[in-house]
Amino acid sequence: MAKRLSYGMVGGGQGAFIGAVHRVAAELDRRATLVAGALGIDPEVAYQSGIELGLDPARSYRTWPEMLKGELARPANDRIDFVSIVTPNHVHYEIAMAFIEAGFHVVCEKPMVTTVEQGEALVRAVQKHKVVFGVTYNYTGYPMVKRAAELVKSGKLGQIRKVFVEYHQGWLATKLEATGQAQASWRVDPTKAGLGGAIGDIGSHAENLVSTITGLEIESVCADLTAFVPGRALDDDAAVLLRLGGGAKGVLTASQVCVGEENNLSIRVYGTEGAIAWRQENPNELHFTPRSGSRAIITRGGPEAGEGATRATRIPPGHPEGFYEAFANIYRGVCDAIVASREGRTPTGLGAEFPDVVAGLRGVRFITRVVESARQGGVWTRI
Amino acid sequence: MAKRLSYGMVGGGQGAFIGAVHRVAAELDRRATLVAGALGIDPEVAYQSGIELGLDPARSYRTWPEMLKGELARPANDRIDFVSIVTPNHVHYEIAMAFIEAGFHVVCEKPMVTTVEQGEALVRAVQKHKVVFGVTYNYTGYPMVKRAAELVKSGKLGQIRKVFVEYHQGWLATKLEATGQAQASWRVDPTKAGLGGAIGDIGSHAENLVSTITGLEIESVCADLTAFVPGRALDDDAAVLLRLGGGAKGVLTASQVCVGEENNLSIRVYGTEGAIAWRQENPNELHFTPRSGSRAIITRGGPEAGEGATRATRIPPGHPEGFYEAFANIYRGVCDAIVASREGRTPTGLGAEFPDVVAGLRGVRFITRVVESARQGGVWTRI
Amino acid sequence: MAKRLSYGMVGGGQGAFIGAVHRVAAELDRRATLVAGALGIDPEVAYQSGIELGLDPARSYRTWPEMLKGELARPANDRIDFVSIVTPNHVHYEIAMAFIEAGFHVVCEKPMVTTVEQGEALVRAVQKHKVVFGVTYNYTGYPMVKRAAELVKSGKLGQIRKVFVEYHQGWLATKLEATGQAQASWRVDPTKAGLGGAIGDIGSHAENLVSTITGLEIESVCADLTAFVPGRALDDDAAVLLRLGGGAKGVLTASQVCVGEENNLSIRVYGTEGAIAWRQENPNELHFTPRSGSRAIITRGGPEAGEGATRATRIPPGHPEGFYEAFANIYRGVCDAIVASREGRTPTGLGAEFPDVVAGLRGVRFITRVVESARQGGVWTRI
Amino acid sequence: MAKRLSYGMVGGGQGAFIGAVHRVAAELDRRATLVAGALGIDPEVAYQSGIELGLDPARSYRTWPEMLKGELARPANDRIDFVSIVTPNHVHYEIAMAFIEAGFHVVCEKPMVTTVEQGEALVRAVQKHKVVFGVTYNYTGYPMVKRAAELVKSGKLGQIRKVFVEYHQGWLATKLEATGQAQASWRVDPTKAGLGGAIGDIGSHAENLVSTITGLEIESVCADLTAFVPGRALDDDAAVLLRLGGGAKGVLTASQVCVGEENNLSIRVYGTEGAIAWRQENPNELHFTPRSGSRAIITRGGPEAGEGATRATRIPPGHPEGFYEAFANIYRGVCDAIVASREGRTPTGLGAEFPDVVAGLRGVRFITRVVESARQGGVWTRI
Repeated sequence: MAKRLSYGMVGGGQGAFIGAVHRVAAELDRRATLVAGALGIDPEVAYQSGIELGLDPARSYRTWPEMLKGELARPANDRIDFVSIVTPNHVHYEIAMAFIEAGFHVVCEKPMVTTVEQGEALVRAVQKHKVVFGVTYNYTGYPMVKRAAELVKSGKLGQIRKVFVEYHQGWLATKLEATGQAQASWRVDPTKAGLGGAIGDIGSHAENLVSTITGLEIESVCADLTAFVPGRALDDDAAVLLRLGGGAKGVLTASQVCVGEENNLSIRVYGTEGAIAWRQENPNELHFTPRSGSRAIITRGGPEAGEGATRATRIPPGHPEGFYEAFANIYRGVCDAIVASREGRTPTGLGAEFPDVVAGLRGVRFITRVVESARQGGVWTRI
Repeated sequence: MAKRLSYGMVGGGQGAFIGAVHRVAAELDRRATLVAGALGIDPEVAYQSGIELGLDPARSYRTWPEMLKGELARPANDRIDFVSIVTPNHVHYEIAMAFIEAGFHVVCEKPMVTTVEQGEALVRAVQKHKVVFGVTYNYTGYPMVKRAAELVKSGKLGQIRKVFVEYHQGWLATKLEATGQAQASWRVDPTKAGLGGAIGDIGSHAENLVSTITGLEIESVCADLTAFVPGRALDDDAAVLLRLGGGAKGVLTASQVCVGEENNLSIRVYGTEGAIAWRQENPNELHFTPRSGSRAIITRGGPEAGEGATRATRIPPGHPEGFYEAFANIYRGVCDAIVASREGRTPTGLGAEFPDVVAGLRGVRFITRVVESARQGGVWTRI
Repeated sequence: MAKRLSYGMVGGGQGAFIGAVHRVAAELDRRATLVAGALGIDPEVAYQSGIELGLDPARSYRTWPEMLKGELARPANDRIDFVSIVTPNHVHYEIAMAFIEAGFHVVCEKPMVTTVEQGEALVRAVQKHKVVFGVTYNYTGYPMVKRAAELVKSGKLGQIRKVFVEYHQGWLATKLEATGQAQASWRVDPTKAGLGGAIGDIGSHAENLVSTITGLEIESVCADLTAFVPGRALDDDAAVLLRLGGGAKGVLTASQVCVGEENNLSIRVYGTEGAIAWRQENPNELHFTPRSGSRAIITRGGPEAGEGATRATRIPPGHPEGFYEAFANIYRGVCDAIVASREGRTPTGLGAEFPDVVAGLRGVRFITRVVESARQGGVWTRI
Repeated sequence: MAKRLSYGMVGGGQGAFIGAVHRVAAELDRRATLVAGALGIDPEVAYQSGIELGLDPARSYRTWPEMLKGELARPANDRIDFVSIVTPNHVHYEIAMAFIEAGFHVVCEKPMVTTVEQGEALVRAVQKHKVVFGVTYNYTGYPMVKRAAELVKSGKLGQIRKVFVEYHQGWLATKLEATGQAQASWRVDPTKAGLGGAIGDIGSHAENLVSTITGLEIESVCADLTAFVPGRALDDDAAVLLRLGGGAKGVLTASQVCVGEENNLSIRVYGTEGAIAWRQENPNELHFTPRSGSRAIITRGGPEAGEGATRATRIPPGHPEGFYEAFANIYRGVCDAIVASREGRTPTGLGAEFPDVVAGLRGVRFITRVVESARQGGVWTRI
């Protein structure tokens, strides 16, 4: 059993949702222990949140710069191994850069940053400081997504022709932000969310799913963004035509006004020889149809689950793994990569598969170009 | 029980597929009897096909002009009541116009004609000659499609915001036309199919489904058409962004290269107050989700089927009705309308609900504008 | 194209449901034409029903004995080829026997008769008079049921171990018969329905499905029958443990008080090497799972549909066939067998696959033994 | 946030599967920390397993009596709060009794013990020593199971008439135990598993699900148990007819030879006014059908999830929770009850809902009576 790593968290204290998810994910496999935190923008909330979580008061910092300083002041073998950044989008860059430059490994929420320039700077910094950097495109952690990518790579789909990806939610169909709801409020605020509304918040997950499964670059986009709910500055609905490498095409839609939809993220990929389909709300199944055969339902843990998915699996088939477990696979990958890095090894398996800083940049570029295309009324725009 | 009408058929003889479907559909409810035909382009095939179907040899015509002449030569009360035109697309216009001008009612396959001008001329002719004209957008005949339209009309969805419609098949993923397969061959040939490949053959069904259910006009389109199989002159894949009346938006995709897909036609409509989803391959169910409630599975014949669907239903819930029964509903509607017309009544129910010549023109206009948008590289184009 | 046969119908006139279904089924493929009838127990209703259906008044008989006499009085080449018996159960025997003895072929509703002795007598009569006799266990006509039987026969399931079959409806969950509803009233009346309520009406379909697919005899039963709705003389719910040939076991349940269920007939068969599952409400799919592979969704008309299902299929995959089409396959089989019989051939294909008089007897025996087992408080009873 | 409790574990060390699941479940919500263990039957394996899990070597005991003694030797405020017993079935009793008598709270795997007498003794001991005792009928922890129970209790189903429950697996369809596979080997061994094979291992989960959701007692059973795989001493397949309180009836099937099935546990309950259906492999959905309405798909976290399910939920709807999360709900309940007990409060919510020692006894009684019924060839046997 691998030794547990130590980590700190920035953001994610009282009242936050995603912070708690990160903590469950990080600790599910006993691979990491929270030992430090700057758990909020308000110094007192940050401190109290850490105390409630049982942190050593000395390591429940009031601000992230204090945390950075405090951890650096500790002996090298008693510092956090990595930091998890779970703040709103607009402060990711500054925090991530500071920790990278201090030599810490990083896990960062998506979208990674709010401009392409910031993204490029982070890529350079990660390369220079040789740190491990994971972006929590968490859906990529589902075992059946790994199986899908494996099927594409193995040639079972032949040449990819068409990709349909969609992420539809309904929770922002009304003006929820007007009620003060925290999750809604920062997401519809351009100063916190960045350029994109739905396209940034959930469209970027869809984009990452396409990249992860097909291995193809999205080369250009033609987009139509809409703010259906009156008074919104950012899109709450996005439809994007895609052109991908190798002549493939695609359609990506992301919407937060599809009433009745919860987290309906799905992808279908059609090649010359076969097709796959996967849906996040029923994630333990992957459909695969060869060109001249019947549709097969491949299950997590089942007889055709494959190597990559099996590595990302904890319990037997028919016992559903869900959102937490997929999210935890990102953390397992990061932990594996950190350990490999220390031991001078090239990471393999989960340690080589999590979305990294380059995937983070790819996502930011995608959002940026989609917004540009839409602003010009739907012109095909290169990425 | 209503008196049976008499009809003749043009096209649809030996080797044809859709002709037999029309005959089953026309006769399923004992509302019409085939009494005449010009059942093919080859005069001998046409004649023999009629004989095999048990037609009176005198009414198994070798060509449609002979049939038109022959039927007009009969006493007015012993002629066909209507003609069904099931030839390839490029000859619909000429035949339809000739029969309309002779005062016959018409059922015509879709797409109705190959140019907007022809479509407009047919609309004028139908209005002038006061004939009943039905276009076999057969999917519109499914009871649950009627229920969907009823829910929209009743306001249960509120204001429509977003429509996703798709029709995906896989049968043309390889170059099937190179094997001489009849169905494939004319569909990929611009001289027979018209401007559109997949967009005309199946995309037009998707368009009609949108119009029928939402009651909204598609105002402009931004399209990307592709011929994935090398050597094809027409598209075998289409992706179209839609803008509809009332500020609604949509995405329409039609593809014949989605390997493993059979006739995966589906529509999802999201409004401010509710959403619906329907899928042709499981047509006896309609999903309805109110904004603040659980998804309900409305079944054909079930407790919330509604009036329109019930009228279009023959057997109890849980006993599936399928493709033939939906198709037959178009014919029932046409027969009802013909009877109403004779009796000087305004048709109601099924007789008021089938796709008419205006719907046929709408479809032709849609295909034409989509092709124009795509040829210009994806420019938003008004319909 | 085969010549159309002529048939007459006993029962099934005004107000009846199943008669109309038989007529659609018989005529869907243009294989048979209704030319005579004694369409009800009330002579006037019978006569008027025939007139409404367009029968020659001379052949719209007031009673079935008149019909028998009238048809025999016609020239041999101008009589009905077969008779369809769609009356309530208690009069099947007398009518069927009379027509058999006069040399007519017969289609009979299920359960075929109300006692084992009657069933045995019919078997002898059919053998003696060499007539074709079909029982409308209509669910057996679904193409995917044929595919299921083929998979079992081919050994893909290995040795059968376990069968789960159920037919659950909810329409009799309240005392519907008290409202005078016709379908409910005779079904709950032992003088018309026979020994069994739910077990006879729908349990017998489940039994036939087991026999048809597995090819195994049910050797003994242990049953619990219940009349949940107060005041019912017959069961409205049945649970039966089965022991089948070859050491297989099974569970059969039939209920008409499962609120919300429509016609939820399903079967799952597990063998040493594979398993199948099929559900009537989504009949175009068959699930097959090999012991060490993924579940495959075999579709009607699809690449693994097999020979028997293809023979029973009219339209391409993805265009649903339903209840009528399955029912029509029984009629096609009977017509094929009649033609083969005339030509002195052994019928093959559909003509060899429809449920015959032996299947009808098997069903009656099953119902009888189940009722015996239940009356003794659930004793294992041999069939 | 509640203070974390300390617990020890007996069994579940190296090579064990379920021990790791318990640890994830216990710690997922940061409610309990593993501080002691006797993690295996082999003393050295037990010790090493504890070291690997990071236990203080002084508390990684070689045997459970040592652990009991060791913990009692510590100051009262520094002992384990409860013990988790995850050994094979035959030793549960002895261990549980010892810890209860020493005043420790207990979590115990199911089936709780191997005889009714042992079960009754444990019930008395728990009552006498006033300890909290949870049995890990883990499926009961799923939020939608709580919702189902709530719907029954609220009267939405009216009077319960019929229950269908099944738990079908395929992993023992071949003689897996002959390969030495650990999970298979003890389960098919009567000296370790007890009286029941499939009926004990998984049938007991089905029984608990019935009790939990319907609130009805199973009053008598009529069973057919089979060992399909040659050479097995215990059943690998069970079919049981049920009679429940209030005149309800049911069918329970449990099988480990259903090839292709993973953990297909499902329940359907029909009452006079409505019905529910739930399936473990897709656990975030619950189907509810009122007698005169459409089927509704109630989702975990969705608008009709209800109070009990919401309490048992961590993340928003559409983000699947799975097996671990349900299992963790049992531990949350036990922890809540321990805290309430210390504070002299009556537990509520999760603390009042987990399966307790009485449920454990009920399960043992059920298994015992089913085996008795089957041994007598299927006689109705009172529970």
